Amino acid sequence: MADIITTHWKGGMQFESDNPSGKTVMMDTNVEGSDKRFGLSPKAMMLSALAGCSGIDVLPLLVKMKVVVDDLKMIVQGELTEEHPKYYHTVTVDYHFYGKNLNENKINKAVNLSVEKYCGVMEMFRQFAKVGTKVHFHK
Amino acid sequence: MADIITTHWKGGMQFESDNPSGKTVMMDTNVEGSDKRFGLSPKAMMLSALAGCSGIDVLPLLVKMKVVVDDLKMIVQGELTEEHPKYYHTVTVDYHFYGKNLNENKINKAVNLSVEKYCGVMEMFRQFAKVGTKVHFHK
Repeated sequence: MADIITTHWKGGMQFESDNPSGKTVMMDTNVEGSDKRFGLSPKAMMLSALAGCSGIDVLPLLVKMKVVVDDLKMIVQGELTEEHPKYYHTVTVDYHFYGKNLNENKINKAVNLSVEKYCGVMEMFRQFAKVGTKVHFHK
Repeated sequence: MADIITTHWKGGMQFESDNPSGKTVMMDTNVEGSDKRFGLSPKAMMLSALAGCSGIDVLPLLVKMKVVVDDLKMIVQGELTEEHPKYYHTVTVDYHFYGKNLNENKINKAVNLSVEKYCGVMEMFRQFAKVGTKVHFHK
């Protein structure tokens, strides 16, 4: 199976990309002399893809385990190399679960299944970065 | 330097992520029994990040080289592994330049500088995928 996307220059430094979902995303970068942004920084969008991929694994696993959470936030930090080409050499993913009576064992199990088995984006990140994950509970 | 993003569960299978630019992106996935999508598939968003990163390198290089192009489209195809975790093992990036009197040498040079030297996302992709690039001219 293959995914195909088309990214189209929209003038200036702006690019619009489609997605198999039918939705689109605008990307751009900081332009000297302007503080106006029209889209996302593409590189940091990869950190969002990592969180999104893992979150989309974890949620149905929690449903299957009958674990109810009130909220979930993931904070992803990527440390960049100093030299070109600048890439993320160290990445941390912090999962923050909110709710009463959170079942910590089951939540840890769901996160581990995503991290170790299911999340393809995580697997790709492991090939270029040292990836650390941590689960936090807010009851 | 580090990039930090926060991805927040918005109910269902939807996640909203911020970006250093201040903009946000919605992500979700196909839900059985529904054909409605609210956001982008996170994994395919990585293909968009690759195109966006490289396009944002190439454009200012072309300006510096005084090369005028009417349009630029990038088509990125990622072949997925069959087994979990499913990742892109082979990726192709097709750059399509449109315009009259396109300076092919200079355009090839700009693309090569991005591919080989500047594009950090491309560098990350090379660590997990066989990456091929091709430049097409439409005069």
